[in-house]
Amino acid sequence: MWGEEMSVSIIGSGMTKIGRHFSKGFKELAMESLSKAMEKSGVSGNDLDYLIVSTAFPQILMNQSDPARILAQELGLKDLKALRVEYGEASGSAALEVAKSLLEAGRARYVAVVGFEKLTEYPSDKANYAYSTLLDFEYEVVRNITPPSYAAIIMREFMKRRSISKEDIAAWSVNMHEKASTNPFAQLPFKITREKALSGVVISEPLTLYDAFPLGDGAASIILSDEEGLKRASAEPVEVKEITQAVGHPLYLREDLTFFEATSNAWRELSSRTGITIDENTAIQVHDAYSIYGLLALEALGIGEAGKLLTSLDEMPFLNVGGGLKARGHPVGATPLYAVAENYELMTSGFNGLKYDGEYSLVHSMTGPDLSAYLILLKRWK
Amino acid sequence: MWGEEMSVSIIGSGMTKIGRHFSKGFKELAMESLSKAMEKSGVSGNDLDYLIVSTAFPQILMNQSDPARILAQELGLKDLKALRVEYGEASGSAALEVAKSLLEAGRARYVAVVGFEKLTEYPSDKANYAYSTLLDFEYEVVRNITPPSYAAIIMREFMKRRSISKEDIAAWSVNMHEKASTNPFAQLPFKITREKALSGVVISEPLTLYDAFPLGDGAASIILSDEEGLKRASAEPVEVKEITQAVGHPLYLREDLTFFEATSNAWRELSSRTGITIDENTAIQVHDAYSIYGLLALEALGIGEAGKLLTSLDEMPFLNVGGGLKARGHPVGATPLYAVAENYELMTSGFNGLKYDGEYSLVHSMTGPDLSAYLILLKRWK
Repeated sequence: MWGEEMSVSIIGSGMTKIGRHFSKGFKELAMESLSKAMEKSGVSGNDLDYLIVSTAFPQILMNQSDPARILAQELGLKDLKALRVEYGEASGSAALEVAKSLLEAGRARYVAVVGFEKLTEYPSDKANYAYSTLLDFEYEVVRNITPPSYAAIIMREFMKRRSISKEDIAAWSVNMHEKASTNPFAQLPFKITREKALSGVVISEPLTLYDAFPLGDGAASIILSDEEGLKRASAEPVEVKEITQAVGHPLYLREDLTFFEATSNAWRELSSRTGITIDENTAIQVHDAYSIYGLLALEALGIGEAGKLLTSLDEMPFLNVGGGLKARGHPVGATPLYAVAENYELMTSGFNGLKYDGEYSLVHSMTGPDLSAYLILLKRWK
Repeated sequence: MWGEEMSVSIIGSGMTKIGRHFSKGFKELAMESLSKAMEKSGVSGNDLDYLIVSTAFPQILMNQSDPARILAQELGLKDLKALRVEYGEASGSAALEVAKSLLEAGRARYVAVVGFEKLTEYPSDKANYAYSTLLDFEYEVVRNITPPSYAAIIMREFMKRRSISKEDIAAWSVNMHEKASTNPFAQLPFKITREKALSGVVISEPLTLYDAFPLGDGAASIILSDEEGLKRASAEPVEVKEITQAVGHPLYLREDLTFFEATSNAWRELSSRTGITIDENTAIQVHDAYSIYGLLALEALGIGEAGKLLTSLDEMPFLNVGGGLKARGHPVGATPLYAVAENYELMTSGFNGLKYDGEYSLVHSMTGPDLSAYLILLKRWK
């Protein structure tokens, strides 16, 4: 087990701008990102063996079950197999793991992973209801607990235990907006000052608007290949070296609300299996649906103390290069694939004005406050 | 590709009775079936590497996204990884394919696949709405097309083209109820006469109540192992020899409404890859959400002409041994896993008073009228 694996590589990626796409349905968004990814990869649609679809809320927000089959029919490709993977906000990472497994098992040569979400089709309260179904409905949601209320509880606990202020935490949002300001796919491509960040309306004290992700539509696609398939691909490959995941405890059963156990466990497994080390200079994407989550994720990955990191975010050029969930945006089913696409481009043709010459890059995703966590390690090709 | 695979085997299965389980939530149903399957397999919960969850409508009918993580937390097993697979009515088959891939890729030793659905929590119109989201919402559902209306169109076309009557087709339902009458897990465990079958209320002319599946809650689980894992398992293994799938055309683009193209393509791939043949004596499960679908599926699998099969159903003892979707029931996300569990038990300890000594058994599943189709080939161990 976990033995001599077949190498699986990314050979193409495509993203759409995140925002309110009233004129585009999920099919158009998904196809737009997939077409870009296929073009970059240099393989044609008929080469694809599987279409793995990642989306979290199509049934609530699009009245659509079985979106994988709908997209396969839309593509009109004979012999294209399909299925959908859902794992809350980590759906895109889970879809990538399924794709990697199909390739490693020799069941495919080229696999497309397509993630999408339409969060603005209905009034925000419906999108917020959909988002709240990520929690345990019978235990949490019926007691009026929602994801932002958990984020607020964790943020308050963090501020108390670590003697850190709202003003300090605002540095995260400022840094993410700075990065998003030059990302052509970002939903909030503008800079903000710390004052602006602090002036946001309160969502759940002490959490304000600028501590939270925006609701937006978007799609991102990744084309994967086994080693044999690389011969025909034209794009520069980046290996999907390893993927790990872990499940954490529900928040109400935790001893320390400021410790992200699942992320920590997924990281321990990843590092013990690969022997790699990471630091402030590594290209890393963390799941910052709320500013505080990004900080605690970095801490669980062993990058440093969250409090100290806040004063040195500008010295981490390869952290959330596209602006993170906070400013690039968070179209849920697509989010981990945006992060993977950004890191892939960063390591090949460049992304957002940057190139990265490190050997490894890391993508972290999770559901809610670390209810489950996924890590994807990308490795420069040979 | 499709090369020398690692062998993957079923080592345990568990089912709950299908029906109205007002006193049990999805967690209780899922756990009940999983506990039975684990007990049979002889492996403990801590041995499990992955929990693959199959369910189609948790978001519409249970307000619950991310059910895989919820169940993993409920199990309370450290290091248990999880994800959910959705592919309409074929979700359970897709989940089994993902599990097989994880094992073949060497990413796991023991994987549990758990399928469940609760279709009776709300009034039937909500369950029927959920079921209709399997069709393309933008094209079909907004034009008031629903799954039973498609079944009725196909049934009418079949009757016209083949000169077969409603009375003839009722033989399917009579045969399925006969089998369900002795299946302890069936939702409709009673025999019916042809007269009774014909007396059902009209759902969509010529389709009546006894041509359609009942709405019910249920859960089924399968434990899978790689070859190394068999050493510790106590149950008799049955190999998951091959899994194939295909996507078909939407109904409004078909030339012949009575030909199931996806099922036929999946079968062609399966038979060419394995060289096996099947006939009336093979243990086969077909997806008969509507009687007519069961007949057309058998025809697409090359078992014989649907019209002639209607007069010889009693000579196919190993066809839908539990009563099929029609009488055993169809808790959507669990359905293909009920079929796999029934065939697994049929090939080992026995099921529904029968034992099967053939080398292979086959499970067919699909979404709607052959919009996508899956085939799972089980093989007696060495």
